[in-house]
Amino acid sequence: MAKGALPGFRDFYPQELAERAYLLRTWRDVARRFAFVEYDGPPLEPLELYTRKSGEEIVGQLYNFVDKGGREVALRPEMTPTFARMVADKANALRKPVRWFSVPQLFRYERQQKGRLREHFQLNVDLVGESDVTADAELLAVAVEIVRALGLTQNDVRARVSDRRLLRALLGALGVPEGQAPAVFGVIDKIERQPLEISREKLAALGLGQAAVDAIVGLTGRVSLERLRADYGTVPDVAERLADLERYFGYLRALGVGEWVDLDLKIVRGLAYYTGIVFELFDAHGEFRAICGGGRYDTLLESLGGVDLPALGFGMGDVVLGELLRKRGLMHAERSAADYWVAYSDPAQLGQAMELAGALRRGGASVEYALKAQQLGRQLKAAAAAGVPEAVIVREDHALILKSLASGEERTVRLREGRLV
Amino acid sequence: MAKGALPGFRDFYPQELAERAYLLRTWRDVARRFAFVEYDGPPLEPLELYTRKSGEEIVGQLYNFVDKGGREVALRPEMTPTFARMVADKANALRKPVRWFSVPQLFRYERQQKGRLREHFQLNVDLVGESDVTADAELLAVAVEIVRALGLTQNDVRARVSDRRLLRALLGALGVPEGQAPAVFGVIDKIERQPLEISREKLAALGLGQAAVDAIVGLTGRVSLERLRADYGTVPDVAERLADLERYFGYLRALGVGEWVDLDLKIVRGLAYYTGIVFELFDAHGEFRAICGGGRYDTLLESLGGVDLPALGFGMGDVVLGELLRKRGLMHAERSAADYWVAYSDPAQLGQAMELAGALRRGGASVEYALKAQQLGRQLKAAAAAGVPEAVIVREDHALILKSLASGEERTVRLREGRLV
Repeated sequence: MAKGALPGFRDFYPQELAERAYLLRTWRDVARRFAFVEYDGPPLEPLELYTRKSGEEIVGQLYNFVDKGGREVALRPEMTPTFARMVADKANALRKPVRWFSVPQLFRYERQQKGRLREHFQLNVDLVGESDVTADAELLAVAVEIVRALGLTQNDVRARVSDRRLLRALLGALGVPEGQAPAVFGVIDKIERQPLEISREKLAALGLGQAAVDAIVGLTGRVSLERLRADYGTVPDVAERLADLERYFGYLRALGVGEWVDLDLKIVRGLAYYTGIVFELFDAHGEFRAICGGGRYDTLLESLGGVDLPALGFGMGDVVLGELLRKRGLMHAERSAADYWVAYSDPAQLGQAMELAGALRRGGASVEYALKAQQLGRQLKAAAAAGVPEAVIVREDHALILKSLASGEERTVRLREGRLV
Repeated sequence: MAKGALPGFRDFYPQELAERAYLLRTWRDVARRFAFVEYDGPPLEPLELYTRKSGEEIVGQLYNFVDKGGREVALRPEMTPTFARMVADKANALRKPVRWFSVPQLFRYERQQKGRLREHFQLNVDLVGESDVTADAELLAVAVEIVRALGLTQNDVRARVSDRRLLRALLGALGVPEGQAPAVFGVIDKIERQPLEISREKLAALGLGQAAVDAIVGLTGRVSLERLRADYGTVPDVAERLADLERYFGYLRALGVGEWVDLDLKIVRGLAYYTGIVFELFDAHGEFRAICGGGRYDTLLESLGGVDLPALGFGMGDVVLGELLRKRGLMHAERSAADYWVAYSDPAQLGQAMELAGALRRGGASVEYALKAQQLGRQLKAAAAAGVPEAVIVREDHALILKSLASGEERTVRLREGRLV
């Protein structure tokens, strides 16, 4: 007998499954309120789908192998390549904007650490076909409304937003050559995770002068649109992006999520393919990894699927989010106990109990009963142990007694059209 | 760009996903009405978990490989070994009977043919800890109530039931040596799929006389408990099983599914591990493969998990069931269109439209609106194309008009606590 699940993989016993179901239902509920529709793809895909987007280096993190037909395949480490393939295949037939979501289980062969397993479930929400910041606001609102629906507040979770095009324009205004921008992005991406002196040295090593280094470090601190306008508003590229961002923040306020969002130019999102507004959601105390990350990737569908459509999306995993909810006492579980336990006074009445159970079930209720004849007291004990709220007792005179297992209160009932009345 | 999904794997575009969601929701709903609770395990497991149960020959049908830690692993081809492992790990702590279900996606590298893909979703319902036929009746009732909930009738689907212990007792009564029984089971298992003469020859080749061969062939025809009692009722082993089966059919009638079930001793279920009552569900016209199969496997938990508990279960896949439902015009889809489309007369009112969308969404409704400013007529056209039933029009004077997109009917409404009144 194998000893257990593989390292990094989870068994979901009913209690854990009920918590997972609570999370996934909330994801789906909120995504649907925003008029996103669900899709799914295969958990196993051609390896090329991932190397095409991320290069050969990703193979080291994949569950990849050669199948019995000689195909190079991999368990999906992320959903975006599948999404791009599916959208590209039917790009002309799909109503725009495409508003799709999915809840795939994803797989990575990673060193195990807190908040990182080798599989997780990840909500993916993507929107294709709209280049305006209205779409960026709509997308971030989905993420915020999810954490709100889970009982978290703007004091628990903050959305940190940046804009790669704004940052690029600001770097231009500071005299950073276009070709150096990616390297500067790389330093900013890590600026929170290393001593500031190291970041300064790295920027200086890129050939930037003291003034530019100071200004870049300043941009990664507390900034506001007003401050940026005052400092850089005369640069046309910057002014244009600031105007878009002002509209963006206005839309977020209109959608009711403005209070959750901070402008934070430190947010770069490591992956190279983002082209515009990017965001991450974090717990406000900074105890956990990012809960969610995403942004605009206007060129990715072209490069992956040959279809030139603007697009944006985010991913939100179940592991870090679950840790945060548990820490805050907010992890709930879908209810799994039955509605009724049918009990019987006389073992000879098992058949009558089954008839009643069958009728109540066809009426929509969840019903359990003792499969082996037992004394009534033991049946009621089993019902209470199962967490069932009410027992229906079939008495020897065939009368039906509805008994609350919490209060012990009893009343006579009758079965009418699959319900107890 | 990879051209598409791997052969035998499905992309679920929103329409297909909505049909899958309809099936899976029905599975879950009915399983819950029978007080089964959901669990799940990893899609990737140690290879040994499967070879332990099915022998090395199963490897030829698996997606198996060596992971980056040198472990022999496989995508799960079935759920029972994972179920057995999980139950065995917590056998003492679990409330008995264990009533669990799961809806895993399963993977087999098989030659492709009708009704057979390389992945499918399969409802698994298992019950552990009860050896009486009450449990067998409860289990089959779940399967029948699912197909009933999907709109099928007892004229569309038949449950065919046999009992391996009865068959063994009957073979004993016919003088078949104990050691020959598995070989005879093998012939009976195939008797429908080959010319009867071949089956007769195979039985004769096992050393059975003409009378025994005739009797066995007779048993695989139309039989009834009454007929069996008349012919074999004096054999104590047979009489005991017939008494149990009579109770079993009585319980099925009490649970309201008796009319769906036929005694059919041809049902063997190829897999070797079944020990008692076995069953399959078929479409009544015999056009499709089995919709569902299962039975009692009282020794499997012992051999797989070292825990001596009686158990029984069934599996029901989404592929054949989906084909049957489509053929009968009964495949439905979960509704995915939004409830409201918020439209605006003046592009300057986009912010007000977003506020309304945000409020309605927080009130629980699903809402879409045009992310790019458009003329009102185009917005309403987009709403109709999206299948949204009603538009809420924000007029220039800020009044809200609720318009049915089917009838064109309009009325003035107000927003109160996230709802339109």
